[in-house]
Amino acid sequence: MLKSISEIFNLQHPIIQGGMVWTSGWKLASAVSNAGGLGVIGAGSMTPELLDEHIAKLKKVCSKPYAVNLPLLYSKIEDQIAVLEKHQVPIVISSAGSPSKYTARFKDLGMKVIHVVSSSKFAQKAEAAGVDAVVAEGFEAGGHNGREETTTLVLVPKVVDAVDIPVIAAGGISDGRGMAAMFALGAQGVQLGTRFALTHEASSSALYKQLGLEAEEGATALTLKELAPVRLLKNTPFFEEIQQAYQNQATPDQLRQLLGKGRSKKGIFEGNLQEGELEIGQVCGNIDSVLSAKEVVEEMVLEFEAVMKYFKGI
Amino acid sequence: MLKSISEIFNLQHPIIQGGMVWTSGWKLASAVSNAGGLGVIGAGSMTPELLDEHIAKLKKVCSKPYAVNLPLLYSKIEDQIAVLEKHQVPIVISSAGSPSKYTARFKDLGMKVIHVVSSSKFAQKAEAAGVDAVVAEGFEAGGHNGREETTTLVLVPKVVDAVDIPVIAAGGISDGRGMAAMFALGAQGVQLGTRFALTHEASSSALYKQLGLEAEEGATALTLKELAPVRLLKNTPFFEEIQQAYQNQATPDQLRQLLGKGRSKKGIFEGNLQEGELEIGQVCGNIDSVLSAKEVVEEMVLEFEAVMKYFKGI
Repeated sequence: MLKSISEIFNLQHPIIQGGMVWTSGWKLASAVSNAGGLGVIGAGSMTPELLDEHIAKLKKVCSKPYAVNLPLLYSKIEDQIAVLEKHQVPIVISSAGSPSKYTARFKDLGMKVIHVVSSSKFAQKAEAAGVDAVVAEGFEAGGHNGREETTTLVLVPKVVDAVDIPVIAAGGISDGRGMAAMFALGAQGVQLGTRFALTHEASSSALYKQLGLEAEEGATALTLKELAPVRLLKNTPFFEEIQQAYQNQATPDQLRQLLGKGRSKKGIFEGNLQEGELEIGQVCGNIDSVLSAKEVVEEMVLEFEAVMKYFKGI
Repeated sequence: MLKSISEIFNLQHPIIQGGMVWTSGWKLASAVSNAGGLGVIGAGSMTPELLDEHIAKLKKVCSKPYAVNLPLLYSKIEDQIAVLEKHQVPIVISSAGSPSKYTARFKDLGMKVIHVVSSSKFAQKAEAAGVDAVVAEGFEAGGHNGREETTTLVLVPKVVDAVDIPVIAAGGISDGRGMAAMFALGAQGVQLGTRFALTHEASSSALYKQLGLEAEEGATALTLKELAPVRLLKNTPFFEEIQQAYQNQATPDQLRQLLGKGRSKKGIFEGNLQEGELEIGQVCGNIDSVLSAKEVVEEMVLEFEAVMKYFKGI
């Protein structure tokens, strides 16, 4: 295993679980961290009170490093930051917003900072803001996504060449082969969302997990690009409604109204497919079993080592 | 270097040049083959007479294996096949059509066959048709592209798991790091279009090469999905016209009329940006020099070996 990312963040394996709304609470995050990866509580779908509760619960069962993913555009961000400070959260993964405004504050609070980017320009801005590492996330990733549609394979070497800080690759990775591929491109760690969303410990609904497993190639699409591009599972009534709206040449305002609020909670958390949306990455088509988070980490390490052994034979 | 692909096709390096309309004639193909890779004449933009001429010229300067890329939907395909037979072309790379109709004929003519696919289902069909290998080409690739938008990182391991024949990865690869990444995923070879389109020997226009080099992240887009999805450079007047048509809610028929005929020749070959289109892959944003085809192959091999050395140190 490579050392740099693991040393900076004090991890056994440079395997990072993506922070996911309605999916990655204390249960998943603690399981990943306890398995030697980096577990991440997704604060984007939590009130400050709920975040407080999740961090407290995680700390009871996990003494290893963990992180909180914090969308910087979150409305009650000051209250969220107060919770992070109260718990002396060791690592913040910031996303969806400018890192220049908050990175110094997080660092002053003694936290390490990772920022999620979708282009080399954003990576350079994050580096200038003082972050410790960036996550370079490609087009194939689930949920919210960059406008330039750069895929992970194209994005990662571009970002690696553009910055001097470590790069963590995200989007389209579900196993140790993908991890080794990203290391070949110069990444020093990987972040996996979908693979960890399809684990026993994820708080996503049973229906989400079932449809994620059943999904085949072409099962997802990046949609609502006029608002904020988001990758969703296509096989849901709500996705059909979006398609219908496009066929009826809906304006961005009409799309915004259709989207409304609470769609991700209804879909991902409650399994209400009539009204909800299911955020998931393209790589769901490559996953066909729900595992424990520990099994995911252990299998990845074995697969990664198998690739290394294979390469040593070349 | 891995052996399987190289042994089957008798190559020094498992580096395959993508067959590209108006770009890969005898000059580029012979240069790649003479450098130890697999040069490919792109027959899609050639009359049977011109293809005959290009193969004859290639054979005068190159005694190594080469291939012809043949879109199976080509209108004068029987005449093209007659030319392939006349020259006893050693390898056919078929695309854009069903391999079940032609593979047995090519094999009967003593040719090896590689088929280009964008999904694991198409890969299995190609395997059933008897091809020797498949090219698995992802969303980030230039030119015509699959409808499911599966990226190379997601597609390659899926195809590797789905078939028993060797898999060649394509889309988003421009250097030896990308090659090593694809080998980590289980591919046994790589195919590069855009990187070889930006070489001295490519017959693409000077303007094509200049704009390809200047391109940054987000410079391309997959468009005309209602007809046949194609990845183009955005920074051209003709691309603007397409965007305008979409804004005016053009029907597929109107788009077809706008597209008309000869757009790729005008753009790629003649450098006429008012009327032409420029097919190019996302990875153009990662390329900043025009090299010779030999330099591309040699640099890739060195970069690949550097990754192997790096992995041996882990």
